[in-house]
Amino acid sequence: MQTTTDEIRDSMASSSWIRRMFEKGIELKRQFGEDAVCDFSLGNPDVPPPAAARGALAGIADAAAKPLGLGYCPNAGIPAVREAMAKYLSRQQQAEVKASNVVMSVGAAGAMVSFFRAVVEPGDEIVVPAPYFVEYGAYCGHFGGKLKPVPSLPPSFAPDIAAIRSAVGPRTRAIIVNSPNNPTGCIYSEDDIRAIAAVVDAENERRGREGGRAMFLLFDEPYRAFAFDGAVVPPALPLSRWCCVLGSFSKTLSLAGERIGYIAVNPSMPGGDDLVSALALTTRTLGYVNAPVIGQRLAAALLDETVDLEVYNRRRLKMAEVLKGAGIEFELPKGAFYFFAKSPVDDDLKFVHALLEEKILVVTGKGFGFPGYVRLSCCVDEKIIARSAVGFKRAMEKFR
Amino acid sequence: MQTTTDEIRDSMASSSWIRRMFEKGIELKRQFGEDAVCDFSLGNPDVPPPAAARGALAGIADAAAKPLGLGYCPNAGIPAVREAMAKYLSRQQQAEVKASNVVMSVGAAGAMVSFFRAVVEPGDEIVVPAPYFVEYGAYCGHFGGKLKPVPSLPPSFAPDIAAIRSAVGPRTRAIIVNSPNNPTGCIYSEDDIRAIAAVVDAENERRGREGGRAMFLLFDEPYRAFAFDGAVVPPALPLSRWCCVLGSFSKTLSLAGERIGYIAVNPSMPGGDDLVSALALTTRTLGYVNAPVIGQRLAAALLDETVDLEVYNRRRLKMAEVLKGAGIEFELPKGAFYFFAKSPVDDDLKFVHALLEEKILVVTGKGFGFPGYVRLSCCVDEKIIARSAVGFKRAMEKFR
Repeated sequence: MQTTTDEIRDSMASSSWIRRMFEKGIELKRQFGEDAVCDFSLGNPDVPPPAAARGALAGIADAAAKPLGLGYCPNAGIPAVREAMAKYLSRQQQAEVKASNVVMSVGAAGAMVSFFRAVVEPGDEIVVPAPYFVEYGAYCGHFGGKLKPVPSLPPSFAPDIAAIRSAVGPRTRAIIVNSPNNPTGCIYSEDDIRAIAAVVDAENERRGREGGRAMFLLFDEPYRAFAFDGAVVPPALPLSRWCCVLGSFSKTLSLAGERIGYIAVNPSMPGGDDLVSALALTTRTLGYVNAPVIGQRLAAALLDETVDLEVYNRRRLKMAEVLKGAGIEFELPKGAFYFFAKSPVDDDLKFVHALLEEKILVVTGKGFGFPGYVRLSCCVDEKIIARSAVGFKRAMEKFR
Repeated sequence: MQTTTDEIRDSMASSSWIRRMFEKGIELKRQFGEDAVCDFSLGNPDVPPPAAARGALAGIADAAAKPLGLGYCPNAGIPAVREAMAKYLSRQQQAEVKASNVVMSVGAAGAMVSFFRAVVEPGDEIVVPAPYFVEYGAYCGHFGGKLKPVPSLPPSFAPDIAAIRSAVGPRTRAIIVNSPNNPTGCIYSEDDIRAIAAVVDAENERRGREGGRAMFLLFDEPYRAFAFDGAVVPPALPLSRWCCVLGSFSKTLSLAGERIGYIAVNPSMPGGDDLVSALALTTRTLGYVNAPVIGQRLAAALLDETVDLEVYNRRRLKMAEVLKGAGIEFELPKGAFYFFAKSPVDDDLKFVHALLEEKILVVTGKGFGFPGYVRLSCCVDEKIIARSAVGFKRAMEKFR
């Protein structure tokens, strides 16, 4: 007898190629040793957390010994942490964010699922520039929402504003903007964000007259701190009153496994207080209940810290050198820690397999809704990046 | 314009009376001082975590300083933690549980939502003895499942086996058993569990012949360690191969806010491996991604510990004394840390309000799908329980 639903069974089957790839990687590591494999497939930040993390955790250990020290907190988060986040986000977003606009979450992922649960009706559409983080589809799909991808413009992967405008229809419930972008590393310009915000505002003005439901601009920015070559990530909150900002400390503090994120609702959003209440409710009923309290305290203690970003910058420059040396086409990413490089053949799976033979693991562009490319993650030591140069060259030779 | 869905708006409205009650409590505390209010409404364990928690957290602080120390772990949990859980559960459940049968979760709540996402099709029914933890409805409702409550038998609140048997139909996807029970404190006897398991097994045998989907026995036991007067909580896993056991460390280690739970699938369940894979998938796609890693490590380090259960036992006996003194009807709970006491009037809200006037906060039985009763939580100091005696007496006098 079948234990799971058909949908989940199909979802497991369709992701089985990712698992096969993953298992192939494990097999290679077992066969040739961990160090022989150049694994650029994972986005698990490997730079150690800031040195202050240890002291902060020791402080939390003291609190933990007290009654309720690790007890439930309000669903929206520990009040003092929300206060600290409000100050932090006010600075970062150049907007007056109040504690009551912020909900702490189980990672940015938890925030997004809570958000979709609060706003998505079956049949709603979520517009997203492609390539995109493929989990978005599952996040809204749980509640009957459907992604509507809009191809961005290579080689920079700036958003195609005209295409986004025409993708918006009466059932569009949100536009997701992920900047700095996973997988492309593109940082959206203020002009582009303004243009997208204008699409949202115009649509909401029309809907306001006709009595429809609001449309949101969802800014997903877990990589905000990862901006290089002097690039600036413009604050999105002031650009549309329909904007929500999501983020996490997974990458900036290398604590992805502790699951700490947040969502901030624009203080001037009409109905924004209802939305915050709804987010607190869905955080509760989705079983998150509250963001992990140790992680909340840890993140709040380290708001002014980041991991050593220069490590990522050096890897970025080294990876660029390696890819260039192999004759692979790519745009030097200004943000995040990924390269979205052009496959030398249309079927990027062929390139993935050729790299696999060189013990180099990358992810197919198909996994991000944008075939013909591969994603490389810089979550590995610079030496491994350097060592991969030979393999990249050899793999490319097969497609000459 | 409306920001949330109609369903979420209605859900907020229908829970507004709980919020009003909660706000009334806050108001009372502000007006008369924290200590003047006897708050028996919350199930937030206030006994300090075991003394070993501090040392364990310090050890984790060392690990946290290393690369990937707080990084993502596999969706199903840290492998060493799953191994430790397998040993722990094998002892506890008197069954051979393997690491591959266990998925670590964001509390027992997160485990249950992941489970429902993996198995529930819209229109599926979940049978649950009433009174029951009201969030169950939301947990399955996210995916179109519907609770089918079956009244238990007061005053002991043992399950009504015949009624459960007739409640099971072709769309029943699971029976939830919560023992020790919130809110009644009832510990299900082995005979009762066997009888419920027989209902599940018989139904699955029929479905196996007719090609239907499996039906599950979902054992929710976050209060397993809370058994008094020598009562034993029988292990459920050996009693049906269709059994899943859920638990958490929220109560036993007083770390409810860190959100650490688990689900174990019976090793002999047909299709059980698929179910575990599905649980790892839904843990990922629901945005939990993995149970918080600090909490996972903390729980694994403290598997042999519990908070001082004798504190809860003393509170239980004191509360019994107080209620008896006031002439309130109740069954002395053998498990968990709640009393489900009979309201002196059919409309238990009237009783709740009379108690409120005495600055005593309790939760209406309606909140558990069983009117005519109120729930009292023993998550407060014994002194406060003692002090509430006068108020209980005075409130009862109004209904003479």
